[in-house]
Amino acid sequence: MTDIRAILRARLDAAVGGEQVLSDPAAVEPYVSDWRGRYHGRALAVVRPGSTEQVAAVVRVCADLGVPMVPQGGNTGQCGGATPDDRGNAIVVSLARMNRVRAVDTANATLTVEAGMPLAMVQQAAAAEGLMFPLSLAAEGSCSIGGNLSTNAGGHAVLRFGNTRDLVLGIEVVLADGRIWDGLRGLRKDNTGYDLKQLFIGAEGTLGIVTAAVLKLYPAPRTRGTALAALPDVAAAIRLLSELRQTLGDRVTGFELMSAYSLALSRKHHPTLPDPCPGHPWYALLQVDDSAIDSPVPQQLERALNAALESGVVHDATIAQSGEQARALWALRENIAEAQRRDGPNIKHDISLPVSVIARFLDEAREALEAALPGVRFVTFGHLGDGNLHYNLAAPEGVSPDAFLAHTVLANRIVHDLVAAHGGSISAEHGIGQQKRDELVRYKSAVELDLMRTVKAALDPSGICNPGKIFRAGS
Amino acid sequence: MTDIRAILRARLDAAVGGEQVLSDPAAVEPYVSDWRGRYHGRALAVVRPGSTEQVAAVVRVCADLGVPMVPQGGNTGQCGGATPDDRGNAIVVSLARMNRVRAVDTANATLTVEAGMPLAMVQQAAAAEGLMFPLSLAAEGSCSIGGNLSTNAGGHAVLRFGNTRDLVLGIEVVLADGRIWDGLRGLRKDNTGYDLKQLFIGAEGTLGIVTAAVLKLYPAPRTRGTALAALPDVAAAIRLLSELRQTLGDRVTGFELMSAYSLALSRKHHPTLPDPCPGHPWYALLQVDDSAIDSPVPQQLERALNAALESGVVHDATIAQSGEQARALWALRENIAEAQRRDGPNIKHDISLPVSVIARFLDEAREALEAALPGVRFVTFGHLGDGNLHYNLAAPEGVSPDAFLAHTVLANRIVHDLVAAHGGSISAEHGIGQQKRDELVRYKSAVELDLMRTVKAALDPSGICNPGKIFRAGS
Repeated sequence: MTDIRAILRARLDAAVGGEQVLSDPAAVEPYVSDWRGRYHGRALAVVRPGSTEQVAAVVRVCADLGVPMVPQGGNTGQCGGATPDDRGNAIVVSLARMNRVRAVDTANATLTVEAGMPLAMVQQAAAAEGLMFPLSLAAEGSCSIGGNLSTNAGGHAVLRFGNTRDLVLGIEVVLADGRIWDGLRGLRKDNTGYDLKQLFIGAEGTLGIVTAAVLKLYPAPRTRGTALAALPDVAAAIRLLSELRQTLGDRVTGFELMSAYSLALSRKHHPTLPDPCPGHPWYALLQVDDSAIDSPVPQQLERALNAALESGVVHDATIAQSGEQARALWALRENIAEAQRRDGPNIKHDISLPVSVIARFLDEAREALEAALPGVRFVTFGHLGDGNLHYNLAAPEGVSPDAFLAHTVLANRIVHDLVAAHGGSISAEHGIGQQKRDELVRYKSAVELDLMRTVKAALDPSGICNPGKIFRAGS
Repeated sequence: MTDIRAILRARLDAAVGGEQVLSDPAAVEPYVSDWRGRYHGRALAVVRPGSTEQVAAVVRVCADLGVPMVPQGGNTGQCGGATPDDRGNAIVVSLARMNRVRAVDTANATLTVEAGMPLAMVQQAAAAEGLMFPLSLAAEGSCSIGGNLSTNAGGHAVLRFGNTRDLVLGIEVVLADGRIWDGLRGLRKDNTGYDLKQLFIGAEGTLGIVTAAVLKLYPAPRTRGTALAALPDVAAAIRLLSELRQTLGDRVTGFELMSAYSLALSRKHHPTLPDPCPGHPWYALLQVDDSAIDSPVPQQLERALNAALESGVVHDATIAQSGEQARALWALRENIAEAQRRDGPNIKHDISLPVSVIARFLDEAREALEAALPGVRFVTFGHLGDGNLHYNLAAPEGVSPDAFLAHTVLANRIVHDLVAAHGGSISAEHGIGQQKRDELVRYKSAVELDLMRTVKAALDPSGICNPGKIFRAGS
């Protein structure tokens, strides 16, 4: 063991320089636990390559010696996908030093960046050109664009702009054998054979290491409207969304559903936040954007909301009169997760469903869960337009959150069985990682699992790319 | 040979019923030549399954007996991808009988259809629900949605709605061993493992047979503006596009560039068409759409064009004052290809480039081609916003088109070398088929070709799925 460690160390030092190979336990520690402290692993070393060629050199070392490697960006994943397991035979490959803009092409509306660049820096680089990179999510200050690609991250702007997959024109990947695939094309149309980038996007590093990407940029929004609508039920929210999309088209860029309990929780822990339309069971946070300066879109939103009030779809509404008011409305939504954390752990589900069955699903799930877990409280919120709900369960009044967590398996079974029965997904935007690999086996068809394993075996035959993620190791 | 033919015939009869297995030469003929008469092959039989189970049964027969199979939809491909080769050892699997709508979900804005349904019928099924399926292309009356998926078809609406790949949420595929993969999910977010559908979309039937798909629908456009702008050069067209997208966002749904020679050709063969802004070198056909009924978008288009006239970006413009005028402007664009055909064959290129290099590419290509082929005429038109040009070369005045075609290899080399040098694609929207498989080998990197072959070998290890397409057989 000492021999292989020494050989590995020497070869990694040669690949990236000794100062970029961390093996001191204190230095390694931040890389072998996830940010929420739910996953802890061990690693032979943490390697910090500074270029694609250095990543390739590291991968060749791993391929030669049969050492598993765990790629890591900002270490903000939700499912343990960037945390090594506890066998201690792997290295972590941190992309953090690869954080440069490689090219800006404003006329083509593309930006070529390295994988380790934080998402917020990508957004800033686009804004500096008067354009916008629309991917936006809570961790944007620290997550990396390579991690966003590898998990096909979702976020707040999917309704209008799609998931990360839809925002990528080309990628560069270091393959499992250390070869570099340069697929950094900036083309909106290219039908020359298989679209290989699609394989690596969302693969959570199990097929290779994404090192750079060509991203699509959009005109920056220059007129914005923000509102909060109070709704009698989820069916009304779906109807409101449909009406807004008919009249405002793709200028509807945000439609966030929130249960009254979610909002109350947000305000409980952030008492300075407003309480604009009290006393209703459901709320929707709405945003409209237009790239034109003098767009009538805020007035159109107001008219659409008035029509919805008259027809009874909406029971109350408030429109932000300033950027400050708009930010306060968004803070209500964005602080739900933080409020949950302060209130004690929840049993969380990141699910999606066809929009048409969401209302039925919520009724059925509530009934089943209240029967199984009397007094359970529902922290339901999410991106309704994408069919994506964060369907989280809080302990009944007076029950300790930790005791409640003992029901996780039961709650998962009820929720995920219903999601599957309605043609939904048990992981809408967070991926599989370590957390959901057994659920994956339960809910995917044998044919689909076999296809996935066939792809994995073809692209990573020796199984060194992020083993134990998506698939249980050896499965 | 007779034995295997008899065994094959008996088993295919058992799979789909004898009346759906065609082997009479006259019955087979329409299936073994492409619609333009450029590719002619032979087949042991044409099989017309009526269900996914029947497709699976046919594929199991082929897998057992090692018989290659060529899937075919509307037989409207541009590159010979649905035509068998002349070895005569394959069967054609026609999806034409699988043309049903399986499900409509208006609240989820999805439509589930079988692969053999003609695109125009898909559009009509969406319209019947008050929604729109945006894929639109010249062959829409006869091409099938399965062929659109398998070639990742482009068309007129890519600027706003993306390629076919972007319009598909789920698919059903019969794999190379005859198993059925049911991936018919109607979800806008789903990060449960590899996104396998991406493999089969655009694979031209070389990895399996797509039998059904869940398609995304959109609000139908209810206000429309159409205009023709005359431009001094391509750089001005790119600037106009950028300005329109800034002020009108994604309501710009069409931006078709046309050279003066393209328009003159269209009018030469369709003399009743209008000649709205004569005397300029370049033209752009513009369309804006809004899903709102009383949208100001036509007036916004007029204002934007007036501003562009004042700033000198546009030299003349006309705005359609009626649906009839709008159709006449579109007819100018849509009749270019037909006019080319009547004028005699061209040397055609379906290329894409980063928008930022199109003007430079056109200058360099013109210079190189005029030096190599004095008097060559340029039939340049295409989807500028996607960076996609149909860059076609017509014979010099007085030179017979057939004699000019002898220069095809030379012209391809000049055009495709320049496209590759500028980071472009040699097949933007038509695919590879038989036509461009050698060009693919010339321009793709060794790593990318190897990755593609790895995928092919993993999913179709015995090589029975549409052999000789994308890859030359045995390569």
